[in-house]
Parts: sequence; structure tokens; C-alpha cells
Amino acid sequence: MTRTIYIVGLGLIGSSLALGIRRSHPDARIVGYNRGEQSRTIALEQGIVDEASDDFGQFVEEADVIFLCVPIQQTIQFIKELAQLPLKETVLVTDAGSTKEAIVAAAETYLSDRQVNFIGGHPMAGSHKSGAMAADVNLFENAYYILTPSALTQADAIPRLKDILSGLHARFVEIDAAEHDRVTSQISHFPHVLASSLMHQAGEYQEEHPFTQQFAAGGFRDMTRIAESEPGMWTSILLTNKESIIERLAEFGERLKTVQEMIATGDKEAIWQFFDQGRRIRKEMEIHKRAGVDSFYDLFINIPDQEDAILTVLEKLRGISVVNIRINEDNRADIHGILQITFKNKEDLERAEQIIHEQTSYQVFVD
Amino acid sequence: MTRTIYIVGLGLIGSSLALGIRRSHPDARIVGYNRGEQSRTIALEQGIVDEASDDFGQFVEEADVIFLCVPIQQTIQFIKELAQLPLKETVLVTDAGSTKEAIVAAAETYLSDRQVNFIGGHPMAGSHKSGAMAADVNLFENAYYILTPSALTQADAIPRLKDILSGLHARFVEIDAAEHDRVTSQISHFPHVLASSLMHQAGEYQEEHPFTQQFAAGGFRDMTRIAESEPGMWTSILLTNKESIIERLAEFGERLKTVQEMIATGDKEAIWQFFDQGRRIRKEMEIHKRAGVDSFYDLFINIPDQEDAILTVLEKLRGISVVNIRINEDNRADIHGILQITFKNKEDLERAEQIIHEQTSYQVFVD
Repeated sequence: MTRTIYIVGLGLIGSSLALGIRRSHPDARIVGYNRGEQSRTIALEQGIVDEASDDFGQFVEEADVIFLCVPIQQTIQFIKELAQLPLKETVLVTDAGSTKEAIVAAAETYLSDRQVNFIGGHPMAGSHKSGAMAADVNLFENAYYILTPSALTQADAIPRLKDILSGLHARFVEIDAAEHDRVTSQISHFPHVLASSLMHQAGEYQEEHPFTQQFAAGGFRDMTRIAESEPGMWTSILLTNKESIIERLAEFGERLKTVQEMIATGDKEAIWQFFDQGRRIRKEMEIHKRAGVDSFYDLFINIPDQEDAILTVLEKLRGISVVNIRINEDNRADIHGILQITFKNKEDLERAEQIIHEQTSYQVFVD
Repeated sequence: MTRTIYIVGLGLIGSSLALGIRRSHPDARIVGYNRGEQSRTIALEQGIVDEASDDFGQFVEEADVIFLCVPIQQTIQFIKELAQLPLKETVLVTDAGSTKEAIVAAAETYLSDRQVNFIGGHPMAGSHKSGAMAADVNLFENAYYILTPSALTQADAIPRLKDILSGLHARFVEIDAAEHDRVTSQISHFPHVLASSLMHQAGEYQEEHPFTQQFAAGGFRDMTRIAESEPGMWTSILLTNKESIIERLAEFGERLKTVQEMIATGDKEAIWQFFDQGRRIRKEMEIHKRAGVDSFYDLFINIPDQEDAILTVLEKLRGISVVNIRINEDNRADIHGILQITFKNKEDLERAEQIIHEQTSYQVFVD
């Protein structure tokens, strides 16, 4: 029996989900809703969906699985609308919002009278691109895909959803919706507030101290990068995860007071410990690992500021898998830089180091 | 007449300064002090200095210019010692510390009775490498090199210093020492405190919420990267720039309270404005520019997770200057990624886009 998968919202996430689902379920009928015409047209033309509509209700009754891939407030609105629409008895509804408690609560409130399985979902992947044009079957490969079960999640619902999504090659993690929101408040939502606040502060400081703008470099750039994110999405996140974010904010305020006290009293030992412990905590975090990669294997090459210097290096390393590559500008204001290449394992790293050492005059080191 | 340049501290900064000075002044006699034997030996072997000593006093009397390239507290200590040592009448003394007011004040206090020109210096470049082994004649190319004149700076001293340093190809900026410390508190010192505090907070949160570690990704990683810096140096910075850092800390605390209030009252419009304004401020900052480059010209290429995919791209772009290259992981948890290549100008960008579009099947876009 052909299953009907209904993708609501054919943006980057919805369209990429559709491609991933089709990879493992080529027989599925995939239908889509999108308010705007452009992504709907592209999704049809590219075969991302088999049919598309700008009427949310059109495919609801035929759907075996419904993916709500729209902004948080719209997701909640569609959950309310689903409560009034005819649905298949076994329908499974899930979403892709960045916060989970408000969405799961909406489902439990509005859909509790219906024969509906609801599972909160948060595929932790994205891109700076958007729309169906940017659809990417590999978008979720090795990414965490968080599932937050609800009171409306029957025993077989999660295995069913994982099966449908098997073509994504994502890493599924089940976690309570409230806990999801707490964890993401710490590692994502509150840091966004910090970055934007720092940007505001520097912007105002600059008015009196014009060199602020001129001297801002590597560290400051990294710390404020996320301040350029799309305001609408982050407003919704803050409004649907108020409690946890406020708690982190207030706790951080206290933390800053402690540091301020240390500086004011000139407590050298305490300040040293503060920096040293921060460093140790970070070094121990999984942050140093990459999905599917146990740890970093980095090679640093001091390349000259010449055309094709990077190409020269990569040609010599032909056949060795490169996980990542970048010109390291951490502490540098200039263009000339250190080329940092990350390998999958120690063997590749050592082989690369030897090749560069023997075949070029570039300084090369591992650290 | 051969001038004697005395480099005090043959670490990365001191050794790289020596190389840069020699590039434009091959006739200069460059002598060095270093406490540890290793960098002293390397500096001699590599010809970075002509003579070296582990006795600070040894070359003081012969020096026309003295560069103090040691940690801040040691710099202040050596300034005190200089006051007791025989010096050439025209000697020019400068340093390379990250804070300037305390060092300039020490010079003005201890050297005011001597015929000494003192200019505070802060070459804004560095590397994750250290020691004379890492010496790099191009380290300061296009980097800001800040000069903070003192009460002991005679009219001809700054042109003399700039001439000596002309081989560095740095960008000199003259600024008051106190203003230097205020500006760097905003764009460097206080952000370091923020990053370490965030790391501490996440570390503690993780004890109760183990997914914290697992889900921390791109944005969090960028925001906490500088928390891994060397604790000793940052302790000295905090202790010698207390007032400005405390002022930024306290001001930021108030700022966070305002945001907290916005979230607590659910003021959607205010939160949206907060994020939008932060975004606008950052977009307008020079942070988007690179030294010597008017702005970014970025090309994004969706490369497959295959060996040599990056090489394939660069081979096709042979002859086009690449300013930077990286695999963009901003919002991605996986390895497969977007290759971001930065070009010097619009023409190179457009040429590159056309080549990739015509000669590969990779998705390519500019944004």
C-alpha cells in the first residue's frame, strides 16, 4: 500500500526531508504544502514532491504522516487546524521546530481527542541557504535528529517515524521536550542573546571610541557571528522558551558579578583559575569532535600569500580524505595565513605531514 | 654607523620582529635576550639574531632600540631595571604588550629621569604557535601595529620607530594608551571573560543536563573558542586593564537585565528589534572586511563528501587568487558541507562561479 507523506512547508528543511524520505522509500507518495508559489513550483519541477498545494487542508485526510516544517507559531496554528480536519486514524504528526515544549503542549491540548500520534521533532541541521532551491538529500547526514515523544505518542510511533526517516542517515535521539528546551537554551538560545548583546554594546561603544570598529578581529568576529541570524526565527524561539532562557540569563548575570569581584580585588590566583578551568572544560567537551570523527587530526601549513598555494598543497595530498580545510585567521589580521587541514585519522595526518615536509619548503606542524 | 637593535624575548613576537627588521635593515646588528635556552639557540642558529644572551643587562648599553617582547609583568620589571642600567643617550625603548596604560605609566614613572624615548607598542598579530621556531617574517603583514606615545616620546621618535619597523609591512596606528585599553577591553578583553564564563556555565549545566555536551554545535563552538587561550596571559591582561573591563562587565550586566525584561514580558516587537539591530550593527562593522580587501567576495559550492572534491574545485580555479577557503559548518552537524571560497574581487568571484557552474555538477551560489 502506497503511503502518503505530507510535507507542510517546502523550505530548506521540508524539501530536504522529502528528498531523504524518497531515498529510502521510493514508493511513497510525497505531497507538499507551501504558501509561497516559488518553492512549490521548484519542488514540483525537481520532483521533490509528487503533488503540491497552497491549501493546507487539501492533503490532510490522505496523509499517513504529516511533517510540519514551518515557523513555530505557524506550526502551533496548523496543529489547531488539524483538530478540526478529517484525519486518517493512524496518522502520525511531527514537526521541525527549534523549541519543543510549546509545540508538544499545543498538540496535547488540541489533538488529545483525535486518533493522532504526535512526536515533536528537531532535526539539528540547517544552512545559510533557504527554500526548495536549496534542498539537499544529505542535509541531515550524521546530524542529530531529536525526537520528543508526547502523551500522544503510541509505542509503535517512534519506530515508524525512524523508518520513514531512515534515508536521512541522521542520528536520532529521544529526549523529553522540556529537557530539549533546557539544553538548547544553554548551548544555543542564550548564547544568541549574548552575541547580540555584545554586538549592541560594541556598536554603542564605537560611537565614542571609533577604533572599536577598526580593531575588532578574530575572537570578536567569532563571538558575534550568530548575531547575524534571522531575527524572526530567534524572536519565536525566545518567546517559546522564556523560562529556561531567563533562568540562564539570570544565572549568567550572577556569574559575571563573581568575575567582576575577582578583577576588582585583583585576585590573580582566582582569575588564573577562572581562565584555566574554562579552558579545561572546553577541551573536554565533545565540541572537539566531529560527527562520525573521533577527534580532530589537524595539520598546519604556513603557506605563502601566493596564487595557487592551497592548490599546490592539495595536489600533493591527492587521495587523502580531507575532512575540513580553512585558512586559520584566529589571531591574524592579515591575509597570509596558516592553512589548517583536518584529516579523518592519525595515519592520514602523518602521511600528509611527511609529504608536505618532503615535497615543499612550507613550514608544517601538528599540534 | 651600524645600529644595534636589542630584542628582549625571543618568542614568536620578538623573533618575528627581528626577521621583519632585518628585511628592511640588513645592515643592523640584531641582538637578543631570552631566559630559556631553546629559543635562544634556535634564534642564533637561524640567524634571527646575531648574538644572544640570557642576561638582560648585557646588551642594554649598546642598544639604539630596545624591544621588550616579554609578558606584561616582566615588561614592567625590565623597565624598572633599565632605570638602573647605563643606556645610550638616544635610546628608543618600546614593547609589545597587550595592554598599554600600565606599561606606559611604568615607563613614565621609572624612566623619566633618563634620556630615553619610550613608545608603547602593540602589534596585533599572533599565532597558535610560539617560540623562535615559529618566527615568521610575514607575521605582521597588513596587521595593525598600535603605537601609544608617552610623555617620554620626543618628536622624532615615532618616525624613527616606524622606519625601523618598515620591513614588517604592518599598518601603524597612533593612539593614546588609555584609549587603546578601553577599545581592546570592548573587542577583546571583555569578550574573553564572556567566553570563559559561558564555558563555565555550560560545564556546570552539563552535570545536570548531559545532552548539553552532545548538542553543542557551531554557534556555541565559535562563541567559546577563545576560552581555550593561555590563562597566564589573560590573567595579566585583566589585572592591567581592570577599570575598563569592569566597566564593560557592569554595563553588560545591565544590558542583560533589559533583555531579560523583554523576554519576561513577551515583548515580541522589542525582541525582534533587539535581534534585528544586532544584525544591522554587525553587518555595518569593518569586521566584514579583511585587511587589504574591501569586502568579502564569497562563493559557496555544495561539494559531495568525496575524496579530492576540494582539489577538483581548486584545479578548475587555478590562477584565480583565493583569499580564504573553508568548509562552512555554521549550521551543520555533519561532515558533508558547503565549501566557501573567498576571492579578492567581484571579477574573480564571477569567473569562478561561471567555471564551477559550467564544468562541474556541483550546486554553486553567491550570496
